[in-house]
This record gives sequence, structure tokens and C-alpha cells, in this order.
Amino acid sequence: MEGGNFTVTPWEVTGEIDYDLLIEKFGTKRIDAELLSRLASYGPLHPMLRRGIVYSQRDMEWLLNLYDKGQQFALYTGRGPSGHTHLGHLMPWIFTKYLQDTFHAPLYFQMTDDEKFLFKDDLSQEDTLRNTYDNALDVIALGFDPKITKIIVDTKCIKTLYPLALKVAKKVTFSTTKAVFGFDNSTNIGSIFFTSIQSAPAFLPSELEKHNVPVLIPCGIDQDPHFRVTRDVAESLGYYKPALIHSKMFPGLSGSDKMSSSVPETTIFTTDSAKQLKKKIGNAFTGGAVSAEEQRKTGGKPEVCAVFKYQFYLFESDDAKVDSLAERCRKGEILCGECKKLLSDRLILFLEEHQRKREEAKSKLDDFMMKVD
Amino acid sequence: MEGGNFTVTPWEVTGEIDYDLLIEKFGTKRIDAELLSRLASYGPLHPMLRRGIVYSQRDMEWLLNLYDKGQQFALYTGRGPSGHTHLGHLMPWIFTKYLQDTFHAPLYFQMTDDEKFLFKDDLSQEDTLRNTYDNALDVIALGFDPKITKIIVDTKCIKTLYPLALKVAKKVTFSTTKAVFGFDNSTNIGSIFFTSIQSAPAFLPSELEKHNVPVLIPCGIDQDPHFRVTRDVAESLGYYKPALIHSKMFPGLSGSDKMSSSVPETTIFTTDSAKQLKKKIGNAFTGGAVSAEEQRKTGGKPEVCAVFKYQFYLFESDDAKVDSLAERCRKGEILCGECKKLLSDRLILFLEEHQRKREEAKSKLDDFMMKVD
Repeated sequence: MEGGNFTVTPWEVTGEIDYDLLIEKFGTKRIDAELLSRLASYGPLHPMLRRGIVYSQRDMEWLLNLYDKGQQFALYTGRGPSGHTHLGHLMPWIFTKYLQDTFHAPLYFQMTDDEKFLFKDDLSQEDTLRNTYDNALDVIALGFDPKITKIIVDTKCIKTLYPLALKVAKKVTFSTTKAVFGFDNSTNIGSIFFTSIQSAPAFLPSELEKHNVPVLIPCGIDQDPHFRVTRDVAESLGYYKPALIHSKMFPGLSGSDKMSSSVPETTIFTTDSAKQLKKKIGNAFTGGAVSAEEQRKTGGKPEVCAVFKYQFYLFESDDAKVDSLAERCRKGEILCGECKKLLSDRLILFLEEHQRKREEAKSKLDDFMMKVD
Repeated sequence: MEGGNFTVTPWEVTGEIDYDLLIEKFGTKRIDAELLSRLASYGPLHPMLRRGIVYSQRDMEWLLNLYDKGQQFALYTGRGPSGHTHLGHLMPWIFTKYLQDTFHAPLYFQMTDDEKFLFKDDLSQEDTLRNTYDNALDVIALGFDPKITKIIVDTKCIKTLYPLALKVAKKVTFSTTKAVFGFDNSTNIGSIFFTSIQSAPAFLPSELEKHNVPVLIPCGIDQDPHFRVTRDVAESLGYYKPALIHSKMFPGLSGSDKMSSSVPETTIFTTDSAKQLKKKIGNAFTGGAVSAEEQRKTGGKPEVCAVFKYQFYLFESDDAKVDSLAERCRKGEILCGECKKLLSDRLILFLEEHQRKREEAKSKLDDFMMKVD
């Protein structure tokens, strides 16, 4: 959808996103205190929930009611392998890992190599398939349980996905895709069809188990349009509507609303070296004043600062510490240089560890890939 | 396309077809005396060529030039498995068999079970898959060479077809499918995408052989729109444009232009019994006069007679005999009853033999099915 000065679709996120307006326009529900308290009953609340980073949902109450009655749900999320993985991609996956751990839920992770080929003029099928296996290493490195996690590579698993996609496609008109995705007459026919393929994994657990399985889709709010289509056709196909839980977009180092691979200088990739990382964080947009002297007097603005947001979104899980950091910034007690150093040091450790696990993941790829007969 | 009082699209053929107008509107070439004489140099001309039933083409000269230089072409044709096979389906397959025999050409035969599911409200995926294997028996019964004939079932071979279909789909806009197929905003997104899947086998021989292979598509003229799309994108994907050779539609027993399964009383299925057959031919539309007496005087009109057309299109391969039959009809020397008896007797023999081979085909299915890893 396009708001006053922002656009949020599965393929474009630009401008200053009004997340409250998205809830209203998309017709989702805010994650309220009651739901948070209910979620807390299954295990410690994830910081992203406490901090409103994961903030919107569809049918979570229904899903938890079934779960409470003993019906296990499956998780479904994914990645469009357009390039290297960056921290913005990791954020919802880390949240998905929390859901898997808390609810012991099997996970279907879709790699949409077909989508990225169809939507990106400059990408070949070889490119998107190479990215797929490269990105899969980052997924595996996060520690998902190989016994209950399957990575679905669209072009490799298409024999399984296609019959489900056809069922969806038969129910969805071009009008619908115009309204939901903003397609027009110049859109290619693969892109028009694609949403059917993204719907398929939402029904796959039911097909595999031969009875209806509830599905929860954790994803960025930008992906909600696909799953509105999925939900609209689900019941007429005899399946449950998938439930959803939406996160905000991970910010870029420029202070913009979304980290984007198209601006590599303001994007931290999981494969970045310590040197690259330091340089990027050194150049990050902050909420500091024009001079150190001035900032000591007036304080900084953590709410607009990319460096602070990184701690808040992903790296400082202790609420007291993150509050204290904001407070010290506002009072001028900590300046941007020191803050950047704190983040760099933490991120270097994180990436070293991630890159080590990423190397180990190379030998685990086969365990995670969904097999199709 | 829609002419003055007829419609010819891959999904609808109605009215009195003006085949000359189709050549003009579709932009194909008539099979002229020069091409016929050239084709005769490879072996005896098929009656359908001699009689102008196979009457239109694209790039046959180019294809034969390559063939003469030693470059083997592949054949590609197919079937939309919407129901039982009828004689109208057999006609182009019999011609395809002639092409395989004459040019020793490998054949890729596509079963579009996905298409029929998408385009027919009342068909399930189970229906179209069941029809697929049922129809395949009729293909095999015609005697194609199992060593060089592969039947591609779309939903079973989708892993092979999908990457090719994606390449096509990325090049084709919704505008194009509106113009070529008459789609509109209410068309489902699977139907919109489908032409990409029908394009894929035209490029499959090149993919399998890892160098460009010329392809000839024998088909009903109603299928030409799909292959205009295929031809339009072929060169930009690095493939040859497929050549085409088009047949007219096989007539229905009602005298209409096309035999159609939707009117079973005027349609002869390959599984019909002798009794069903006799009844259908007994009720066939003929070119006879109001009474036997009148007809002996004024003669009949073979050019409008369904019974005569059956001999002309498919069952009497001897030109002298078919000419003599028409002549005797025009002179009132043979009446409709006798003519129907002639056709019935011949068709009963044909169907008995076909049904026997169809039974044998059940044990050969596996030899003909394309394998996908």
C-alpha cells in the first residue's frame, strides 16, 4: 500500500513508514497487552515482542487456542534470495527461531529463487539459485532444529508446490493481484502467478500430514499482502487460514526505515569483515548534535539514531541496559563515537560467531533441504 | 481470434471457421504447391497434406533447409486432458506419427493436466491426471516409437518445465496475453501464466541436448496463439523459433466445424462400443435430400456431409476412392444409409483395432513417460 509519504509492498519499502497506519490499511490487529501476557505464559517474551518490533498479527488467538488444546502448529517463513543476507533479514528469522524453540514447532522455510528471477531484471536463474544456497547457510547458522526444519527451494521443490499453487491460482483473478500488489498490464505473467507459489507452503503441512495443520507465518509486515491472498482462498480450498505475526522493518545505517541490499554502504552483510563493519558503523547516521560540546549540553536523539536502533532491534536484549543507553544519550553522557564503538565491538563478536557457524552449516545443508520424490 | 461468425482460440472453437481468414489474421503461411512437392521428396505425401487438411505453416522451409543440411529436428505436440480421447484428437496425432516416421524425429508429447484444471471449473486435479493416463493410452496405441517418444505430464515433469517456463514468463506481459488470448481482469492468474508452460517443451530439446535443436510443432490451428508467444520470446532467450504445421479442426457428427467432447452424441470416443458408434453415425448430419427419391434425382452434398467428411479427413486414404464417393453422392448414386453403413463398418474395424492396441499400451506407459530426476 502507499501511504502519505511511504510505500510498503512485498517488493518495495520506501519512505518513513507509518506502522500504525499499516495496521489500519492492511486490516491486521495490533499485538496488545493481553496477547503479550498470553505469549509470556509459554516462555520468556522475546525482546522484539516486549519492544513492539514484532507488533501486528492475524488470528494469533485462534492459533493459541488450538495449541492449548494440543494441536501443534507449523511455522512458515522465507527469503527472496536476491543477494547476500544482511542483518535486516536475520531479524525475523531470529524471531522465528524463538517461536520454534518456544512452541517446538516444525518450520518450513521457503527460498523463492523463482520470484527473484521474475522480479529482478538483472538476476539470472543461476544467480538466484547461488544466492539461495548462500542464504541458506545464514538460516542454518541461526541454530534451527534440523529434525523439524525444512528449507524449500522453489525450483527444486516445485513438483510439491505446483499442485498447491494451481489450486490457489484457480481462485485468484488478475483483478485481485492488481488491487493487492499494484500490478498492471505491463507486469510479466510470471510475477502475476508468483503469489500462488508463495501461498503453497501455508498449505503444505496439511498436505503432508493428510489433515489440517494450523500454520503461523512470522514475517515482515511488507509480506502481508501475499498472505491476504492466501487467507482469502484458504477456506474454500478446505484449509485453515494461516495466522500471521508481523515485524517492523530493520533499519538501515542511513537512518532510513529499512536496511536494503541495494545500498551496500549502509547495509551490514553477514559476510562483512570487521574492517568493513567498522567503516560502515563509523559512517552511520546518528542522533548526535553538530559538535561534541553541543551534544554534551543538549544530548542526542536515540529515537532517530541508527546506531541506537541496532542495539534496540537486535543486539541489546536487556531492557534496562537499552533504556539506560537511551537515557545517557539524551543527557549527553555518552557521545556517538563511544556508542559506535560499543556497537562495533558487539557486532564484530556477533559476526565472528555467525561466520563460524555459517562455515559449519556448509556440511549441514543437505540435512535441511526438503526432499521431493 | 474472432471472425465474422466464428471464434478460434486455444480454448474455444465455435461457428463456421473461415480457414483462409485464419491464415491472414494469424499471419501464417499457406502450405503451397512448392512446399508440398518438397515434402513429397521425403516420402509419400500424407493424405491430410494432399487434401489441404493440414494447410498452414510457419518456417517449414527454414526447418527443412536445416534438415537437409543434416540437422535433425524434434517434434512437439500435446493434449489437454479434459476428458476421453475422441477422433478429433487422433487426427493431428496421426499426422504427427507420419512426421515421426518420415523424418525419424524424436517426439515430445505434452499432457497439460495443469491447464485443464485451471481452465475448467468442474475438473479437479485428480480428474485431469486420470484423463492424462487414459489419453496417453490413445497416443501410445497409434504406434509412436518408444525409443524416441516421450510423454511429458506437466504436473509430474514440472521440475524440468518450470525453469524454462519462468524464462518465458519473464518476457511476456499481461498485455500480450490480453491481446493474444482475450484474457481480462477476471481471468485467473494460473490461466494467465499457463502459456509459459506450453512454451517450455519447444525449448526442452535444446536444453536436453545442450545445443540449439530445431523444433516442429504439428497442431490444430486453434493452438497457434500459444506458439506465437513462444516464437516471440524464443530468440531473445537464445533458442530457435519453433516451426509450425497446422491442421484444420476435425468435424463433429452434427456437421459443425469441430468435434467437441462437450456434445457426446456427436462425438466418437476411442472407447465407444460398436453399438454406440452405429447409433451416433446413424444420427449424423449428412448432405442428403429430404427423401430418398428426391436424392436420387438431385444428388447429395458431400461438402456439407459429416459422414463424407469422416472418410475425407481420416478414414479413406485413397484419393480416387474418396473422389468417387463424392461423385456418386452428387449424382444420387449412393444414398445416406449406404454411406453411413460404409463408414460404420470401417470405423468399427478401426476402433476394434485401436482398442486392442490401447489395452496393450497399458503395459507400455512407463516406457513412454518422461523421467525427471
